Amino acid sequence: MTVKTAKEIPYKIYLSENELPKYYYNVRADMKVKPAPLLNPATHEPLTKEQMEPIFCSELIDQELDNDTQYIEIPEEVRDFYKMYRPSPLVRAYCLEKKLDTPAKIYYKFEGNNTSGSHKLNSAIAQAYYAKKQGLKGVTTETGAGQWGTALSMACAYLGLDCKVYMVKVSYEQKPFRREVMRTYGASVTPSPSDTTAVGRRILEAHPGTTGSLGCAISEAVEVATSNDGYRYVLGSVLNQVLLHQSIIGEETMTAMDKYGIKPDLIIGCAGGGSNLGGLIAPFMGKKLRGEEDYRFIAVEPASCPSFTRGKYMYDFCDTGMVCPLAKMYTLGHDFIPSPNHAGGLRFHGMSPILSELYHQGLMEARSYEQTSVFEAAEYFARCEGILPAPESSHAIRAAIDEALKCKETGEEKTILFGLTGTGYFDLTAYRQYNDHTMTDYIPTDEDLAKGFESIPKFPGNEL
Amino acid sequence: MTVKTAKEIPYKIYLSENELPKYYYNVRADMKVKPAPLLNPATHEPLTKEQMEPIFCSELIDQELDNDTQYIEIPEEVRDFYKMYRPSPLVRAYCLEKKLDTPAKIYYKFEGNNTSGSHKLNSAIAQAYYAKKQGLKGVTTETGAGQWGTALSMACAYLGLDCKVYMVKVSYEQKPFRREVMRTYGASVTPSPSDTTAVGRRILEAHPGTTGSLGCAISEAVEVATSNDGYRYVLGSVLNQVLLHQSIIGEETMTAMDKYGIKPDLIIGCAGGGSNLGGLIAPFMGKKLRGEEDYRFIAVEPASCPSFTRGKYMYDFCDTGMVCPLAKMYTLGHDFIPSPNHAGGLRFHGMSPILSELYHQGLMEARSYEQTSVFEAAEYFARCEGILPAPESSHAIRAAIDEALKCKETGEEKTILFGLTGTGYFDLTAYRQYNDHTMTDYIPTDEDLAKGFESIPKFPGNEL
Repeated sequence: MTVKTAKEIPYKIYLSENELPKYYYNVRADMKVKPAPLLNPATHEPLTKEQMEPIFCSELIDQELDNDTQYIEIPEEVRDFYKMYRPSPLVRAYCLEKKLDTPAKIYYKFEGNNTSGSHKLNSAIAQAYYAKKQGLKGVTTETGAGQWGTALSMACAYLGLDCKVYMVKVSYEQKPFRREVMRTYGASVTPSPSDTTAVGRRILEAHPGTTGSLGCAISEAVEVATSNDGYRYVLGSVLNQVLLHQSIIGEETMTAMDKYGIKPDLIIGCAGGGSNLGGLIAPFMGKKLRGEEDYRFIAVEPASCPSFTRGKYMYDFCDTGMVCPLAKMYTLGHDFIPSPNHAGGLRFHGMSPILSELYHQGLMEARSYEQTSVFEAAEYFARCEGILPAPESSHAIRAAIDEALKCKETGEEKTILFGLTGTGYFDLTAYRQYNDHTMTDYIPTDEDLAKGFESIPKFPGNEL
Repeated sequence: MTVKTAKEIPYKIYLSENELPKYYYNVRADMKVKPAPLLNPATHEPLTKEQMEPIFCSELIDQELDNDTQYIEIPEEVRDFYKMYRPSPLVRAYCLEKKLDTPAKIYYKFEGNNTSGSHKLNSAIAQAYYAKKQGLKGVTTETGAGQWGTALSMACAYLGLDCKVYMVKVSYEQKPFRREVMRTYGASVTPSPSDTTAVGRRILEAHPGTTGSLGCAISEAVEVATSNDGYRYVLGSVLNQVLLHQSIIGEETMTAMDKYGIKPDLIIGCAGGGSNLGGLIAPFMGKKLRGEEDYRFIAVEPASCPSFTRGKYMYDFCDTGMVCPLAKMYTLGHDFIPSPNHAGGLRFHGMSPILSELYHQGLMEARSYEQTSVFEAAEYFARCEGILPAPESSHAIRAAIDEALKCKETGEEKTILFGLTGTGYFDLTAYRQYNDHTMTDYIPTDEDLAKGFESIPKFPGNEL
């Protein structure tokens, strides 16, 4: 290992393809207290593999349940796909540092360097691969903002799998370009609720003219997967398996930093369902859990949907429609509806069970920001670093800038690492609001939150 | 130099930042017959530096007129900016080769890896730099599809220069997202024709309700530059200086190929004004001109706007509004209006004087494709290579695929290199037409062309 001096650190550290990780890192193996298992909502007993088989791909269930294996091999076919856009660059934000006039050293791992525009592709190709290997015809999923649906469409096109995406109707209409990207990759995209499923028809009858919700789209996607031979349902966040696949982000980051002798003091990521943050911090958290090194981790969420900062650590449904299993997580209640917020990927009422347990143990911090302040950071970043960031990612930028400004006050030369999960090409309606000064902020009142908490199921052992 | 065997060639060859070119390569220095000079339309005499001073930045005029200096240093500040997104990757299209089942080896230089979404940024930062160095307050320009305007906005934001973009009104309305990107980078974007200029007001009076044209937007941008202290006008294609800046594409490509002992047989690029193709082929053409090596070069243009394949090599105005100098180039006549074609960047009636002269000397080939066939190639490429290409770039993809299929027939193991100039995130209206099977093709008739040729100015020495 050649340790270079700070002066020699390039703008972008690209690993070679030989340095692409060969294994996913499973942080659960190093956790003393494991994340709580998913429960069957009917019995409140842990879900068995058999119960999951009709919904999920077999090998992915194994990964979901595996709390012990530290390293899980990345199949060669998946690694070949990764080579099309990975290793992704680790960027030294020299221009941002200069503009902030801070002694802090800022790095970001950029995951927007692929057509899906985000880190979602890392898990999409893994999930599609296991579906293909199992001999399935296709997969179904839901999508809101559209990043996950796009990533899955790309992975399925590559492997020759059918891909059925249920897209929340309001997004289907408001984001026609996202829909076209998925269609270009051969996916069928259905606005949800639709008349293609029993649950969709029921919802349409009960709520004519509804513009849909993620919960409803999940219900339709699950119905199509379970009622069609050769199909399974796949999900882009929250689940343990997804965080496992996303660990490639953190592994590459650590390899690149090790090469140059860099040690981050602070690791920052935006948190919706937790897939990006969980992936970025995984190997660093592993070192912390094993007592080898210490880091501060900060999860950043929107003030309008504050699962970590104002939620309850309880079992709750992952979806509004209550068709999914119960997960123990920081939740605002599955009936909690965040106000319209453009960071679509962060509008989830719950949070990854792994991250929830780590946060509960005090191994991680969390904070929230209002939208306008997030877009202010996004614009500042875009103008000096040249990348138009996604609103989701901009939450991490906001926190990184604030930490760098603190260093300016104190004179501390901290090393800050944050995850830049994606680009904002499909979020320009939100940028327009910011440019026009018509963007508004919204923080739920305690009464709003109390209403959401009422929807959390009550059963023995699941008390506040 | 380590020459590697084909087996070891990675998916993406990234040069290190130390390998970023330090000089632009000026192909004119190696041309025996130089491109014809720009003429003053009033006198039909070559334009002097003095005549250009009120419009263009001083150092850029020197570059425009310099037919002799082979290498021109890239300023350090410009190289620093380049480091944010360069060196750009040279990709071995392993997946495309496999899907085509061709013995050909296909490479593409990907220039869409930055927020402007295209190679335009390479010249934008250079032009903005020289404007800043001259102590100017800002620059003005026009934009149609919006790639150039976006690139210039980014460069100006970085350097703290004011940027006034005149955007063709129909694009301003149809591409609101492009407009928002420019605004996010702090540019002022005015739909053209506008009432902010005398020429705009004249046009609005004569043609109420007009949706504008590039020619009109150029006229407005030039007026604003010449009538405001501390402003100059900048252009994103056609000019010699622009091809000079874009030579960095070809230089990086050659360095990467040399490292792995690769020699392209065929070099392919789309051609609108010629900036991308001219930049990609520059150092290769240099070797050919100096008799050191031989390559085939292919310019690909839309059948709806066939400057090379059906145009005349004559002096003509660069703009419809006849405010620009006369350039000797392959032209369809400045009054030629191509049918609506989504490859906005290729809808120019003329062509770079440098490329025109090279084509005229038989050093380069040209061919044209219809739009539907181009989008077919774009979809095919996206599904296996994972990148959503811009419609402009997809013309080169079409030609590369056709050449690879020829190799499949003949068994020849040719090495094909093409330029992937940009991404298609802002072209999804066109993709939607393709997906919906509502895309149409249009080839101008000989009568259509004859009408355009009539607008070419006639004067002694400028005969067919």
